[in-house]
Amino acid sequence: MLTQEGCRERQARLWQRLPDEISWVLVGDCRHVQYFSNFRINPISFSADQKSLLLLTRDGKTILLADNFAKRSATVPYFVDQEIIIPWYTHKKSVTNRDDALCLALTEIENIWSGETGLIEPEGVSEMVAAMVAEDAAWQFAEDDEEQPTTLGTVIRSLRRAKHADEVELLRTCMRAGEAGHKRAFEVIRPGVSEFEVYLEVQRAAQETAGVPCIVYGDFRATNAGLHKAGGLPTPYRLQDGDLFILDYSVVIHGYRSDFTNTISVGTPSDKIVAQFEACRDTLHTAAEILKPGIACRDIWHAASKVLESRGFGPLAHHAGHGLGMEHPEPPILVSESIDTLIEGDVMTLEPGCYIERQGGMRFEHNYLINEHGSEQLSQHHIGLSR
Amino acid sequence: MLTQEGCRERQARLWQRLPDEISWVLVGDCRHVQYFSNFRINPISFSADQKSLLLLTRDGKTILLADNFAKRSATVPYFVDQEIIIPWYTHKKSVTNRDDALCLALTEIENIWSGETGLIEPEGVSEMVAAMVAEDAAWQFAEDDEEQPTTLGTVIRSLRRAKHADEVELLRTCMRAGEAGHKRAFEVIRPGVSEFEVYLEVQRAAQETAGVPCIVYGDFRATNAGLHKAGGLPTPYRLQDGDLFILDYSVVIHGYRSDFTNTISVGTPSDKIVAQFEACRDTLHTAAEILKPGIACRDIWHAASKVLESRGFGPLAHHAGHGLGMEHPEPPILVSESIDTLIEGDVMTLEPGCYIERQGGMRFEHNYLINEHGSEQLSQHHIGLSR
Repeated sequence: MLTQEGCRERQARLWQRLPDEISWVLVGDCRHVQYFSNFRINPISFSADQKSLLLLTRDGKTILLADNFAKRSATVPYFVDQEIIIPWYTHKKSVTNRDDALCLALTEIENIWSGETGLIEPEGVSEMVAAMVAEDAAWQFAEDDEEQPTTLGTVIRSLRRAKHADEVELLRTCMRAGEAGHKRAFEVIRPGVSEFEVYLEVQRAAQETAGVPCIVYGDFRATNAGLHKAGGLPTPYRLQDGDLFILDYSVVIHGYRSDFTNTISVGTPSDKIVAQFEACRDTLHTAAEILKPGIACRDIWHAASKVLESRGFGPLAHHAGHGLGMEHPEPPILVSESIDTLIEGDVMTLEPGCYIERQGGMRFEHNYLINEHGSEQLSQHHIGLSR
Repeated sequence: MLTQEGCRERQARLWQRLPDEISWVLVGDCRHVQYFSNFRINPISFSADQKSLLLLTRDGKTILLADNFAKRSATVPYFVDQEIIIPWYTHKKSVTNRDDALCLALTEIENIWSGETGLIEPEGVSEMVAAMVAEDAAWQFAEDDEEQPTTLGTVIRSLRRAKHADEVELLRTCMRAGEAGHKRAFEVIRPGVSEFEVYLEVQRAAQETAGVPCIVYGDFRATNAGLHKAGGLPTPYRLQDGDLFILDYSVVIHGYRSDFTNTISVGTPSDKIVAQFEACRDTLHTAAEILKPGIACRDIWHAASKVLESRGFGPLAHHAGHGLGMEHPEPPILVSESIDTLIEGDVMTLEPGCYIERQGGMRFEHNYLINEHGSEQLSQHHIGLSR
């Protein structure tokens, strides 16, 4: 749950980035409405596909625009100075197009933008909404030191890099739920159990720890000598002795997500599999040791890949990791040609993996917070082919 | 899963409704992209909050625009003639604003709309996307017999009323999963079990029957003499003897949802509770008997309310039911002032309830398909306070 203090801090950072002549902004991406107000429609609700809007003014006012059923499906508490809630459905009359409610809400606060220069988030605001404010609003602007115009959505994404204290707390909540699922996986993975049954058990354990229904997604797949790469949601396939179960999954709570991996051996692993594991584990440790503000993300990727290569398993076939938060993946991106550099406040993953034809694939992953001293490992699940 | 035949039929119905001068449309609401192509980003995936676009031309061509990670998270198969998939993330380079990918995709097919008159879905297309096609596209138009201009989003919503065969099949799949959850509820509801534990068991049973991870949402709440109205997701509250557990929930599979209710008595119900149940049950049966194309939805509401009133429990405190599909609620709306009339192809619910202070609340619900003969009851769960 984001806090009022955190929402205010994020608003202040936004206004520092925007030209002085901008006196209001209209935000429509559900992630960004939440980022500044904690208002988020629960994806596990009847309003999952609906939208809301947040109007922010430079003098510090926040106004939420939503319909009454969206409000019923949203996180509480949320932090706004005013809310325009349109009674879209009342149990008395037929319904019209639900998206009209947001336009109706806007008509109630026309005085806010009339005659003032504003900026809309063109990625998250619909054409219908934009048409209402178009005369007074831009959708691109030039930052001081840039030639290319940018958008509000791009600026907010860059703000999202450095996590605030309330965001880190929420991510820690996701981690605890993720750990519970990994612990449960060790108890249920055995020959004869299906990938889908593993998913159901992991999902349940994660939700029991979270204490609320939440989204559980990721890779729940077996690899083996015949299929050394596999990803995505579980299939009905039943595990066999010798399989490697890659459990790489996220728990999403209030829009934020953990994302960490372990690979479990079904039955006793061969010496070759153990050597493959040790290479991945050492890669993870080596990369984790160099995490600190200022390091180039491409250097982390190359350091990780080098360990795998030194064991005869390289180069690393995918990213070494990525940022965590409201999206997947998000910056920083740890790849060979990355232009990103770690900053204090980054929450990120490291996830080296190794996939060998006629043997099988595996991946191991922890999540970290970048702090002034280097990093703090946030995920605490057991990394290993067996308990 | 929607079929290619169904998608084509729906496209044909759309073109029949649009003025002849419109030669292309651009759709952005995720529900409507799916409606015409079966392409839907799985909400249980890392791309849950992302968008895609669908361009349809009057000569029958369909073009999907999406980024490569959205494609990885989408239903398969989907049915389009062409797809523009932008490699937003490649495991090689840093990422930019993901929403830019859709604009980039659009530049590859500029020849489609250039010089032709088109229509965009202003509710579902972002301002940034609309700005790219603005010179050649309208976002409102006048239907033959209407004075007020309408939008593509409103027209598509009206098409969604009468379900096609593939939509009914998908809804039946949701029903089977929903029934499994109701069956499981009878096995687990007893004093000491929490609302949240009931949710976890119902969710699991529904997903086991569906065979895939799916969204399970609704009301999982106890009522009693101290709290006669309660709704929404489960709390940690532990059931006590004398409680009434209202299980009113939806299973969402590929965007479509079932929605039916039963109320279970924790312990042996009193005579008063049984009388309350019998009134609700008879209300449901009375309303179900009059379902047929052409009946006014307000008349169904009044017929239902009248039964409750005749038993001393009226009037009905909320809608008598509503349409089912990709949204909740959607037309037809069965309320006292409804202007809707049932049509063949409607899939809908009836859900009379009764909430008595210092006694408790209950609700019972079935789902129906309106056909030429009257109706077919789609949900087959047991309605009753006990097994």
